[in-house]
Amino acid sequence: MSISIDQYIEQGKNLVEAELKRALQNKKAPQHLLDSMSYSLLAGGKRLRPILLFASYDTFREDNKKVHKTAAALEMIHTYSLIHDDLPAMDDDDYRRGQLTNHRKFDEATAILAGDALLTYAFELIATDDLLSNEEKTFLIGSLAASSGPEGMVAGQVLDMEGETKSLTLHELEKIHELKTGELIKFAIIAGAYLAETDEEQRKHLEDFAYYLGLIFQVQDDILDVVGDPDKLGKPVGSDMENAKSTYPNLLGLDGAQEQKAKYMEKAEQSLRKAHADGAYLLDLLHFFDKRDH
Amino acid sequence: MSISIDQYIEQGKNLVEAELKRALQNKKAPQHLLDSMSYSLLAGGKRLRPILLFASYDTFREDNKKVHKTAAALEMIHTYSLIHDDLPAMDDDDYRRGQLTNHRKFDEATAILAGDALLTYAFELIATDDLLSNEEKTFLIGSLAASSGPEGMVAGQVLDMEGETKSLTLHELEKIHELKTGELIKFAIIAGAYLAETDEEQRKHLEDFAYYLGLIFQVQDDILDVVGDPDKLGKPVGSDMENAKSTYPNLLGLDGAQEQKAKYMEKAEQSLRKAHADGAYLLDLLHFFDKRDH
Repeated sequence: MSISIDQYIEQGKNLVEAELKRALQNKKAPQHLLDSMSYSLLAGGKRLRPILLFASYDTFREDNKKVHKTAAALEMIHTYSLIHDDLPAMDDDDYRRGQLTNHRKFDEATAILAGDALLTYAFELIATDDLLSNEEKTFLIGSLAASSGPEGMVAGQVLDMEGETKSLTLHELEKIHELKTGELIKFAIIAGAYLAETDEEQRKHLEDFAYYLGLIFQVQDDILDVVGDPDKLGKPVGSDMENAKSTYPNLLGLDGAQEQKAKYMEKAEQSLRKAHADGAYLLDLLHFFDKRDH
Repeated sequence: MSISIDQYIEQGKNLVEAELKRALQNKKAPQHLLDSMSYSLLAGGKRLRPILLFASYDTFREDNKKVHKTAAALEMIHTYSLIHDDLPAMDDDDYRRGQLTNHRKFDEATAILAGDALLTYAFELIATDDLLSNEEKTFLIGSLAASSGPEGMVAGQVLDMEGETKSLTLHELEKIHELKTGELIKFAIIAGAYLAETDEEQRKHLEDFAYYLGLIFQVQDDILDVVGDPDKLGKPVGSDMENAKSTYPNLLGLDGAQEQKAKYMEKAEQSLRKAHADGAYLLDLLHFFDKRDH
């Protein structure tokens, strides 16, 4: 590899965004619905999950064309979950990434339907991907549905809502994050490794890696809400403390949260080594997410 | 066949309901989420789509075990669409089939998530069905997603909402119904015929049959809202007229609507004959839906 991790991330963003635009162009849906889907899908965002999917594949194989549509599908699922989470009945947010949330830009009914449409289209995109075998499609669709459905991301959202009214233990907090954000991160890593034809032993270790990476991402989120720079984050800080939300710093103190993150980092690096996946780019991404400031 | 069409319908209902219960039992989701999914999934209902799927398969093959899970998946998609349609931001309905709608029984956030979970689980159920080949799974998932997504059912819902504020032509009305209810009926018929290994020529005619069947179902719905028996329907009649909604009777008069239905019936029967599928049970179901009083 001759490019920096920043360039690698930028390249991944461009790849998945081009694929998302193509996917939208291929749909003959009512214009209003397409506008709403496209508004949230192309609203920027870190594209963390697709980039992890690329990196997992790139660790073992050249030319990642094979994972482009799956990466777009994954980002559609993530985007649908944000649209629905922002709804008045859920988190009731007016802004996301500095622009109006979908239901504020359009209306609630349109936002609900745009989310439904993105969730559904994600599975169609994989099912109709000419570069994948039927066996690969079936594996990917089954895994993606399991990761995002009632035992995965949706379960995490339900537990998160239930958790808002009580104080959580560290174990309960980890469980919620594992489901709400960890499951899709796990899918990204495993899907890339599977399509790159790694063996089961490697994928077991990569699954551990994904687990810790998801938690690191979350601890850092919580830490940034305490010590982050509002300008870099694009949102105010301190709201978790104010709302007495169950977060790592609120549970363990700021130092304790940093220590906990260091423990996760050690485990994540170990898992990568065991999977023989500590070359480019997963290790670089791990350190990038450890140190990120927005 | 030695059983009546009523018995056949009853048998189909029992089959799909047993499969739905099994699917729910197999999920280790948060109890509250499972309760909400199960509440709407097992709330009765005609099970029209699964029964059509069985009938399509049974027309060509013995022993329909192969389609059970797909039938359950189809009913999950239908149920999710009802839960989301009933939400305050959409139709804002308090009751469905004589019991509280999901968001009234639970709350809006839970109803949104239960719908999302059912939609996602539907695809997982097909992807993990041991009785299907990977090729069959891919075909079914691709078709089901296309029928229910932004070019299918969700598009129909968007056009229906847009249509509420203007008067529609017969052609526009047909288009909305084709997407909103017709697409899943088409999937039911085509999925059954595909798994029964019919040829493409047959499936082309069966797709025509499904198109007219969907319209017949809708005209009869509209007619029942004018002349139906509220006790049998389990809901008041006359609301379409009151709301000046675009319906067949409002567009064509009651006699005109009956005539239109007769035209659709003729086309549907023709298509069935051309597909060599006018033995049991599709023709019986067609007449059953033509004459239904609830």
